Amino acid sequence: MGLFSKPIKTLDDLFMHMLQDIYYAEQQITKALPKMIDKATSPQLKQGFTRHLGETENQIKRLDQVFSLLGKPAKGVDCAAIDGIISETKEIMGDVEDPEVLDAALIAGAQAVEHYEITRYGTIIAFAKQLGHHNVVSHLQQTLDEERTTDTILTKLAESSVNGRAAA
Amino acid sequence: MGLFSKPIKTLDDLFMHMLQDIYYAEQQITKALPKMIDKATSPQLKQGFTRHLGETENQIKRLDQVFSLLGKPAKGVDCAAIDGIISETKEIMGDVEDPEVLDAALIAGAQAVEHYEITRYGTIIAFAKQLGHHNVVSHLQQTLDEERTTDTILTKLAESSVNGRAAA
Repeated sequence: MGLFSKPIKTLDDLFMHMLQDIYYAEQQITKALPKMIDKATSPQLKQGFTRHLGETENQIKRLDQVFSLLGKPAKGVDCAAIDGIISETKEIMGDVEDPEVLDAALIAGAQAVEHYEITRYGTIIAFAKQLGHHNVVSHLQQTLDEERTTDTILTKLAESSVNGRAAA
Repeated sequence: MGLFSKPIKTLDDLFMHMLQDIYYAEQQITKALPKMIDKATSPQLKQGFTRHLGETENQIKRLDQVFSLLGKPAKGVDCAAIDGIISETKEIMGDVEDPEVLDAALIAGAQAVEHYEITRYGTIIAFAKQLGHHNVVSHLQQTLDEERTTDTILTKLAESSVNGRAAA
């Protein structure tokens, strides 16, 4: 779009666009995680990614509820940002030889994904509050809290063991 | 790369790759910001982006110092993540008609950029500490602190005025 139409006229339009963007992003993440689980060497990291895959599937169901509460069809919209973040993670995965260095790279990639979700859910929640869509705020906040927790867990895992093994 | 070579063999290689990635990212950000300054309607937002452009130029100089301290040439490497994030922001800029809704979209885009930088600098600092590159940690930490401050300023600006005007 962009050249021939200006489909976003109101903050509500932008809010819906952002919801569709994160809906697409969550789906791309569920597609990327199995490969990351497969490539991870650290059992803790493998377990962490597996847990997060289940959490992400649940976050998609939560977004389905959000769309339903808003009376809108659940649908995604292409999101160049998450495509770029995942593509970069895949590229680094292909470039790293040592399995323990790869674990460190996988954590870096996963944290870039988490931070994209943290910023988008933060924006979406601020828009929802501004627009008076109070019935969906707690759903979105629950997911944002989960993303922040996942990011913190990954930082701890990197600093407590994975980076050390990668440097050894 | 990926298919024919595995150029990242050690955590030091991954650290250098990430430094080159953020070096490229910072340069792309200095190219994107003037357009965002031009498109912003809120004087506070225009001023905030202008201040951040100067800060970003300074962060590039700081990265030059980091490369120099490490005895490596300063160079960038293509970063699909920042390209995707900036491309998405530009696309939304083209899709939004109302100037006050556009301000809200510009903040969302800028915060996605900040969060990418926050996660990358966080990773790079953890790697630097692990690898004993203590002479570059304070430079990188200073930039990370600036990115976090910029993100906080943007949240406050959105919630205190920009989102309200966009919803009016």
